[in-house]
Amino acid sequence: MAPDEIKRISLAVIRRLPKYHKCLGELLQKNVERISSQELGRILGFTASQVRQDLNNFGEFGQQGYGYNVKQLYNEIAKILGLNTEHKMVIVGAGKLGQALAGYTDFERHGFKIMALFDIDPKIVGSKVRDIPVYDMKDIIYFVNENEIDIAVIAVPRERAQEVVDILSKTLIKGIWNFAPVEVKAGSNIIIENVHLLDSLFTLSYRMNESKWMERLARKDGKKR
Amino acid sequence: MAPDEIKRISLAVIRRLPKYHKCLGELLQKNVERISSQELGRILGFTASQVRQDLNNFGEFGQQGYGYNVKQLYNEIAKILGLNTEHKMVIVGAGKLGQALAGYTDFERHGFKIMALFDIDPKIVGSKVRDIPVYDMKDIIYFVNENEIDIAVIAVPRERAQEVVDILSKTLIKGIWNFAPVEVKAGSNIIIENVHLLDSLFTLSYRMNESKWMERLARKDGKKR
Repeated sequence: MAPDEIKRISLAVIRRLPKYHKCLGELLQKNVERISSQELGRILGFTASQVRQDLNNFGEFGQQGYGYNVKQLYNEIAKILGLNTEHKMVIVGAGKLGQALAGYTDFERHGFKIMALFDIDPKIVGSKVRDIPVYDMKDIIYFVNENEIDIAVIAVPRERAQEVVDILSKTLIKGIWNFAPVEVKAGSNIIIENVHLLDSLFTLSYRMNESKWMERLARKDGKKR
Repeated sequence: MAPDEIKRISLAVIRRLPKYHKCLGELLQKNVERISSQELGRILGFTASQVRQDLNNFGEFGQQGYGYNVKQLYNEIAKILGLNTEHKMVIVGAGKLGQALAGYTDFERHGFKIMALFDIDPKIVGSKVRDIPVYDMKDIIYFVNENEIDIAVIAVPRERAQEVVDILSKTLIKGIWNFAPVEVKAGSNIIIENVHLLDSLFTLSYRMNESKWMERLARKDGKKR
């Protein structure tokens, strides 16, 4: 099959994969061996057909009348997510956010190792966060290529983000995890993932408001009858 | 209708609402007046029936043969998300993460105003982040109740998170936005929303790995024929 025939999977499907991964991991811990698409959908809040459609993108995992083997599906999704290989990261920007992220040990537990931070501030360059060194931004191209870094975390102010991405575009970096609240552009060989904190805050806001909203809806329903 | 008859909407549906909100906002900016569930689903990566099912939870927005009125649906979803009222927040923990969040001006732009930070460290208490004062943790109950704060952001280390939530449970707070990478528990009158940074990192990891994965899948498909 020619490379241009290779199908691409929609980003929305991909964004649901970590949720499947987490859910299956929790089921595994509860010693659940198999699960139907209905049940998996119920836990995740998708329709059964959405679940089947999502997972069919990646191969034939389920069996009619049996459902999914939880352990097998969990391992397959981990592989699909690339969690079975080690990733090397650098954090660009050793300010408040960069240092907070460098202090977060959960990344490493999942195979994402932070190798260095980079900054332009001479007062910070040369220091360490945990055991992670802070280097001068001017050395980033050399460092990234030499150490086969595959992910750069952008933790610089909004107005510096594109500039940093332009520099990274000259390296062999493969992925950019962008915390700056601005859309950045890189060459087509670099994948950019933006962190959308507002989505999570909006969800909280809805849930705080839910009972009020539902009461209003119920009153409307009542009137119609 | 009795309060116990009020239906609850699954969290998964709610988590999709900010995506609808964002997408509709972008369509509005492009002067799109109406959209079908098929087209909205295509942009968001859901099936058309998932879109209709999601939105039907909140009322009757679409019209057969017409689709959705973009502006109306955008405004309704903003209302459902509680974005038409002002929220007052405090950040608990004025360390790296707390200060980084306090510096993030996008929250305020959407009606979420940060009124104060709280910390136990006497070296930080009394200082300011931007114009936001850092107060002593011992005053948080009084401050929250007196100023009708509705959201507390947890930006303390993992091992302090539950302790902070226990204190907040004695206040009139309605929502907790938890950045500590640990599950916390509060009374049933408080809504907790956890930030899952790993989901976003895993998505990046997948996308970096995608072409390799898709090639393997294509080879498998090829063999079968």
